[in-house]
Amino acid sequence: MAMEKTIALDAMIASLLEEKKYNTLKDVFSTMNAADIAALFEDLPETSLPLLFRLLPKELAADTFVEMEPEQQEMLISGFSDAELRAVVDELYVDDAADIVEEMPANVVSRILQQADPEKRRMINEILHYPEDSAGSIMTTEYVSLQPHMTVAEAIRRIRRVGVDKETINTCFVVDGTRKLLGTLTIRTLILAEEDTELEEIMTPNTVSVMTTEDQETVAGQLAKYDLTSIPVVDGEDRLVGIVTIDDAVDVLVEEATEDIEKMAAITPSDRPYLRTSVWEVWKQRIPWLLLLMISATFTGMIITGFEDALSKMVILTAYIPMLMDTGGNSGSQASVSVIRSLSLGEVEFGDVFRVLWKELRVSILCGLSLALVGFGKLMLLDGVDVWVALVVSGTLLLTVIAAKLIGCSLPLLAKKIGLDPAVCASPFITTMVDALSLLIYFGIATAVLHI
Amino acid sequence: MAMEKTIALDAMIASLLEEKKYNTLKDVFSTMNAADIAALFEDLPETSLPLLFRLLPKELAADTFVEMEPEQQEMLISGFSDAELRAVVDELYVDDAADIVEEMPANVVSRILQQADPEKRRMINEILHYPEDSAGSIMTTEYVSLQPHMTVAEAIRRIRRVGVDKETINTCFVVDGTRKLLGTLTIRTLILAEEDTELEEIMTPNTVSVMTTEDQETVAGQLAKYDLTSIPVVDGEDRLVGIVTIDDAVDVLVEEATEDIEKMAAITPSDRPYLRTSVWEVWKQRIPWLLLLMISATFTGMIITGFEDALSKMVILTAYIPMLMDTGGNSGSQASVSVIRSLSLGEVEFGDVFRVLWKELRVSILCGLSLALVGFGKLMLLDGVDVWVALVVSGTLLLTVIAAKLIGCSLPLLAKKIGLDPAVCASPFITTMVDALSLLIYFGIATAVLHI
Repeated sequence: MAMEKTIALDAMIASLLEEKKYNTLKDVFSTMNAADIAALFEDLPETSLPLLFRLLPKELAADTFVEMEPEQQEMLISGFSDAELRAVVDELYVDDAADIVEEMPANVVSRILQQADPEKRRMINEILHYPEDSAGSIMTTEYVSLQPHMTVAEAIRRIRRVGVDKETINTCFVVDGTRKLLGTLTIRTLILAEEDTELEEIMTPNTVSVMTTEDQETVAGQLAKYDLTSIPVVDGEDRLVGIVTIDDAVDVLVEEATEDIEKMAAITPSDRPYLRTSVWEVWKQRIPWLLLLMISATFTGMIITGFEDALSKMVILTAYIPMLMDTGGNSGSQASVSVIRSLSLGEVEFGDVFRVLWKELRVSILCGLSLALVGFGKLMLLDGVDVWVALVVSGTLLLTVIAAKLIGCSLPLLAKKIGLDPAVCASPFITTMVDALSLLIYFGIATAVLHI
Repeated sequence: MAMEKTIALDAMIASLLEEKKYNTLKDVFSTMNAADIAALFEDLPETSLPLLFRLLPKELAADTFVEMEPEQQEMLISGFSDAELRAVVDELYVDDAADIVEEMPANVVSRILQQADPEKRRMINEILHYPEDSAGSIMTTEYVSLQPHMTVAEAIRRIRRVGVDKETINTCFVVDGTRKLLGTLTIRTLILAEEDTELEEIMTPNTVSVMTTEDQETVAGQLAKYDLTSIPVVDGEDRLVGIVTIDDAVDVLVEEATEDIEKMAAITPSDRPYLRTSVWEVWKQRIPWLLLLMISATFTGMIITGFEDALSKMVILTAYIPMLMDTGGNSGSQASVSVIRSLSLGEVEFGDVFRVLWKELRVSILCGLSLALVGFGKLMLLDGVDVWVALVVSGTLLLTVIAAKLIGCSLPLLAKKIGLDPAVCASPFITTMVDALSLLIYFGIATAVLHI
């Protein structure tokens, strides 16, 4: 629905621009949201952007700028006069400014920092200084801090004075003289309280907070778990240095889910939307894994070569190789994906390894027996094979499913334990391991039962 | 980290309970968050819960109740007196109450509705009446509505009067006499404005809103896209009927990502955490897909049987079947997962089908050539096979990768177009199709080149 609107607007904006109806364009833009304007700009010719951007009111211009792609931001900045750049930078929240600075080449960065006022420049540099994907790197330093002995009336006066420059006033933070975090206070509590109450009496003490070095995924998880709209970020001495707001946490959650999904499909994650990633980039994200997995399939080839004699005596056995390998692979990836997602959501940790193994053992016996039964019936009734061949195939099914599920559930837990990313232990790797295993089981049973 | 804390608390709470130190327990709980208390309760013996729950202060008790698992909620309710149940229901927000009611058996539902005051009962019933996973079913009807001709001072007085019962006051909603939505107003704008300004002058008109029937995933996406903390829900006549707040949207985003991941791994999605799902439930989530996929692998078996003669003449060809099938499957799932995730995030839609095909064609030629080259080298140098066999295998690699990626990227788009869920077109189904295709290509090239 949103898409259709954009497509229709596209043509309208282009023709208004051609007719030089700038006042109409101004009016149209002022009814729109920053995110929609940025999406619209992506579909218009790049050359028209500097002109269109100048038609936006100051605050909307900054908000739109934040939503644009880095290439377009860079293009606009290079066309800005110093005064224009200063006007945009003035309106940016420091966390957004830091995000933009991170994406720009060095010469553009120095122009942006030159135009920022000294206080903002200090804050941007502070955020840039934290490791990538840490709480410090996504926090903003523009929050409202209050003192415990202020009254409600004093607090509201302070918010009126400083609030306009802060990213959020929905939650305010109570600190002592050394900036140690004492508690939080929502604007709702303030509004509903008596004017002469001291903040200390109504604030929420023992607030959830995170360290500057905490991983951004954990920070987003905490915001989600405690239903917060912002969370304080503290240093090693429990002093408040910034806050992470829910809108940034939502972006982190969506981004991390995408990364997990990509890793599970053997793709190196990227920040860019699929259609905006070049063919070379996509190739680079995918080819290392394909090569690695192709080379690892050498083992399965070696196993088959090893049993070449047996196979040539009984070619019918070859016909069930794909089915056995696929079923093993699917069973294993079901177990691994269940565990990987539970690890991401914090529902499971390494200490649960025996509970997980015990659960998967029982599930795999149930699944294995069901598959073996149906498989046996199909081989006897539809394929009309020898009863011993049917027994070999269904026996392999049962054992392969059990082995696949036990490997599938334990590998991600092991990976997590030794500090690797569990998501890369998903389907493709499990499949390659399970392929080799299922062939060994198959030929092992076949040579024993069929005496070949 | 959070986990470790819970484990230590576990033992502490149990021994305090044994020593009947109820006042100490009260003090301990009052320093904790609802989500943490609920997690703690899950690890304690069920029989101690009614007693422990009664030690919580009223508001914290209701918040904790919301965070608990349905089984535990039901157990607690069955032990509640009517007065106790009324106290909890009084404190619940209507959207939380509706969520709980949905999970309870009929007799518990009627007890809950009996204890709710008539207005709350009406609102719970209204929410229950919307289709599952719609905006209406996750919205709350407890929001602050204001009139356009109120002054800022009047608005703040109204918020002070009604705000305590509302789920959020961070954003208020301006409606006319017929409840038609005119605009939104953040508490920040109100606090920073002059007292005698009329709301009409400072509200944000042209607000983003969603229909009651809109899918919850779209609603969550809109909140994320526009960085909102709440979004208004309107009926067919644009009248405001409720709002969806960001905390519920975050839950939806996490839940939908989990569902997509489960479907991609051929698991029927479930709402329950992995470790709390019974073995039978897990079996039921997994076995239908395993059976379906096992049966579909019949085709690959039939293809191999069809080429049995060729294979028995040249058993070496069998050794490369697993590698060719795996590489095809991996290539296809890379493409399908990229497209499925882009569809979920709204970055790609059916109209982009030709752009997607064109991109995947180029990527697949690059990937196919790289794999064929490395594969050819490996077969000649390491495996020492005949040059014609090496050519057959690498030719198959190239063609299989191209076919796999084109199928992988187009199937999810087609599924979306005809109203199916794109996520079920992920790896397992693509793999089964690509397996059959890669064998056909392999044997086709082999019979032509090797004259077998």
